[in-house]
Amino acid sequence: MVEILSDKVINRLTLYHSILADYIEKDIEYISSPQIADLLHIDNTQVRKDIALLNYKGKCKVGYKVKELKILIEETLKFKTVKRAFIVGAGNLGMALAKYDNFEAYGFKISALFDNAPSKIGLKVNGVEVYHLNEIPHMVGKYDVKIAILTVPRTFAQEVTDFLVQSGIEYIWNFTPCVLSVPNKVQVWNENLIGNFLQFTVNHI
Amino acid sequence: MVEILSDKVINRLTLYHSILADYIEKDIEYISSPQIADLLHIDNTQVRKDIALLNYKGKCKVGYKVKELKILIEETLKFKTVKRAFIVGAGNLGMALAKYDNFEAYGFKISALFDNAPSKIGLKVNGVEVYHLNEIPHMVGKYDVKIAILTVPRTFAQEVTDFLVQSGIEYIWNFTPCVLSVPNKVQVWNENLIGNFLQFTVNHI
Repeated sequence: MVEILSDKVINRLTLYHSILADYIEKDIEYISSPQIADLLHIDNTQVRKDIALLNYKGKCKVGYKVKELKILIEETLKFKTVKRAFIVGAGNLGMALAKYDNFEAYGFKISALFDNAPSKIGLKVNGVEVYHLNEIPHMVGKYDVKIAILTVPRTFAQEVTDFLVQSGIEYIWNFTPCVLSVPNKVQVWNENLIGNFLQFTVNHI
Repeated sequence: MVEILSDKVINRLTLYHSILADYIEKDIEYISSPQIADLLHIDNTQVRKDIALLNYKGKCKVGYKVKELKILIEETLKFKTVKRAFIVGAGNLGMALAKYDNFEAYGFKISALFDNAPSKIGLKVNGVEVYHLNEIPHMVGKYDVKIAILTVPRTFAQEVTDFLVQSGIEYIWNFTPCVLSVPNKVQVWNENLIGNFLQFTVNHI
């Protein structure tokens, strides 16, 4: 097992995993690196290099065993490690993430949603309840949650972040278009949808 | 102006842009590279390197002029180039993207949303109408749209993709957890939310 995987490798391994899941659904036993490469429009040698990082070798001519490779990726990316998280902001984006297909298969467990709109408190999304923001400090302890997925409107982003940090949240997956100011002990992962799309349009369109 | 910017540079420039917009709101005239670096918990030399790519130099001791640097980033990332797009799938995620704060400031213009649920056809989100999927071929020509943002459920992802390709869509920003099979002339940009989050959790948590 390698120590640190680059972001790009992790990203590709997740995509390989999707393909493998699809092959399993279709009852296909083997997959070759060119098959993976073709689907992703990337280079075959790239696929082989990534898979070699997992210390896994395919069989000559038939390729990789779909089930084995899938399990190996799951181990490498720690799908079995439960990552409990709160979704903070039960608007469209928060709801979409709460309903996200197969989140749990990757080890993500949404313990609760939070919002300040009275009409949303008590709703259940995918079996998970929406609580008032005020409940966060109490719930952090109760569910031992360290990760918050931030999907509040831009104008409340910093204020809610300060509250999350005070409440004991240590990791923030930030879907707002704001750069959040946090103490050094807290880590922010900026989803930065706009930046992701600009990566695509600036160089390709 | 540089020719090709790496994905990571584009991503960071977008974040710098957010910070600059925030400074302008607060009427602050200058910003230094350590101020940017501190907010993002990254290295100061990284910030200076990125900004040097834009051929922009700060003033000794006072730093960069906020307004000038902001405009320069907007030019580099082609914010003024209008990128017309359809949102295909008017569920929570599609709705969230249609309402996304400030999408237009980056040059993204959502021309229409599409869904197959009769209850959604004719709704307006942020002034943009929801049409039936069947209208796509006609609307591609009418609005000269080449980009589709795909937010349909997993199970329809490939089928809808085939239809988009037939209809003349050339670029797909894929929010579904599926690896889409498309002809070579079509480019897919996998948002891969799960992969993005695993980048965070695998190495940091």
